[in-house]
Amino acid sequence: MMHSATAKACANIALIKYWGKQDAESNSPATPSLSLSLDGLTTTTTVKRIDGDTRKILDTFLINDETVSDSVAKRLTAYLDLWRDRGLIEGRFSVESHNSFPTGAGLASSASGFAALAMALSALATKQLNRRQISRLARRGSGSAARSIPGGIAAMPATSDPGATCLIPAEEVPWGMVVAEVKSTPKSVGSTEGMNLSRDTSPYYSQWLATAKRDYQAMKIAIQERDFTAIGTLAEANSHAMHACMVATRPALIYWNDLTLRLLHEMTKWRSGGLETYATIDAGPHVCFFSKRADLDQLLDLVKRVEGVKVATLNLPGPAALITERS
Amino acid sequence: MMHSATAKACANIALIKYWGKQDAESNSPATPSLSLSLDGLTTTTTVKRIDGDTRKILDTFLINDETVSDSVAKRLTAYLDLWRDRGLIEGRFSVESHNSFPTGAGLASSASGFAALAMALSALATKQLNRRQISRLARRGSGSAARSIPGGIAAMPATSDPGATCLIPAEEVPWGMVVAEVKSTPKSVGSTEGMNLSRDTSPYYSQWLATAKRDYQAMKIAIQERDFTAIGTLAEANSHAMHACMVATRPALIYWNDLTLRLLHEMTKWRSGGLETYATIDAGPHVCFFSKRADLDQLLDLVKRVEGVKVATLNLPGPAALITERS
Repeated sequence: MMHSATAKACANIALIKYWGKQDAESNSPATPSLSLSLDGLTTTTTVKRIDGDTRKILDTFLINDETVSDSVAKRLTAYLDLWRDRGLIEGRFSVESHNSFPTGAGLASSASGFAALAMALSALATKQLNRRQISRLARRGSGSAARSIPGGIAAMPATSDPGATCLIPAEEVPWGMVVAEVKSTPKSVGSTEGMNLSRDTSPYYSQWLATAKRDYQAMKIAIQERDFTAIGTLAEANSHAMHACMVATRPALIYWNDLTLRLLHEMTKWRSGGLETYATIDAGPHVCFFSKRADLDQLLDLVKRVEGVKVATLNLPGPAALITERS
Repeated sequence: MMHSATAKACANIALIKYWGKQDAESNSPATPSLSLSLDGLTTTTTVKRIDGDTRKILDTFLINDETVSDSVAKRLTAYLDLWRDRGLIEGRFSVESHNSFPTGAGLASSASGFAALAMALSALATKQLNRRQISRLARRGSGSAARSIPGGIAAMPATSDPGATCLIPAEEVPWGMVVAEVKSTPKSVGSTEGMNLSRDTSPYYSQWLATAKRDYQAMKIAIQERDFTAIGTLAEANSHAMHACMVATRPALIYWNDLTLRLLHEMTKWRSGGLETYATIDAGPHVCFFSKRADLDQLLDLVKRVEGVKVATLNLPGPAALITERS
């Protein structure tokens, strides 16, 4: 029986956004989604079996060398319980996780976090799990984590209990992303609560679901045809449609702030100046610009020069989640 | 026969927004709208009959003492032709117009402009026109101008060929507005073109129309009940719904800029601090905050302190359009 496993996973940024849940229990998405994993945003997680009487000991969690809050510990224990309840793992565990980037800053740390955790747990599991199964299990921790299991360009349909699959592996994706971090206070409304509010009060929610489905189908074709202009145009429009659905929620969910909008308006100028780049924004203020690999350095330079930008990073497509050690 | 008439009209800011046209020719709105006229944003227009052979002379136009561009002259001549074609006026005219605030800066100068022009023309008309008829004629120049004819809190339904009526006269409206001017380049997409783009490409357009109708009915009740909290909440949500419909347009119409969003986020803080104020934004970047009259001074002070705000003005409810001189 394995006693310890370490796994590494990349965060991913959705090109077709996930906003809306079919139901809370299964954490199945109401919209299909499609993403690019980023090699610069990674989580490395080690899971170790704790010896002793499982009725007396608890799971332990460290993130970036710090003990987690009670609410995070509760969420993570519930996640291990899901694996235990299915008979996939037995006993108690210590979990140690490190992010290569700011945690909880709206940069998809829950995606890479739950992907790395699910991957590590799969190495300790009582039975062999394939990637699709691991992706499904990652989704139960955080919806977008499912897409970090296959890595590269990954797609997750909106079926019941879906897993994500790889459309193009990282090394074959000829694009990259410049992520502009936008300083922000912690989200006043988290994603799950926000999705519920949008479903209940946004007059545009049902049209958002229909739009996401259309965009997803169109994006799969654009990706198959490696049509960068179509991919970028669709991704940007889909991101705007999600944020518009949020803004129309009552009361409004406005995840953008002043720097977000300055970056969007600057981008319009860069594009009319001939640099082909598009923006996509998750449920937070950070702006992810993407362009062909050859344009990334120029793009990074332009982003860094925008007033107010403190951190901007260049990211190439990130690989699938991976078990790096086991013992 | 009258030879000259001067009229004065206030600009108005919509509390339930007009975005969408039934058809271009009649300039009838696809959404019902409701507005507050502002006493600080006025246009004064003098129309004088030019003697001579009407086949040989042209109408002349001066705005703020400057000759207008050819395209503006064409639009204004076409507007006079509308009155002439209906036999309401005869001959050629010189039109001189002065705005008390920046022209074409997204501060509804076309509303006060066409309202003052229609009012002045009515004094020179071949037959007596009532306010509703003048409002309908003002609408043919600019949709929102119809609401500046009755002034105060005015409502315009989305029927065919509607005119606006007064719900509460200015002196009885216990609220006011602080208008924060946000520096911007001229709109890259004007309102009429933007409305057409939204109708043709925004996935949320049909839901926007339905939402505007519901909001309008709810707002009429809230105004009848003088329920400021309901009025503010509805106005802000309706404004957000319009901008969300614009953002979801493909390509996106993003009229907000960085200062717009900074103001919106600051307002959230003021409100949680106990100052009851709400924001509404027309098809431009400027933010109009409104509050009860007793809170306006404090509101103005807070708005002026927001980084980047250069001009903020306090406005009380503005009266109906008025003929000030005739000879």
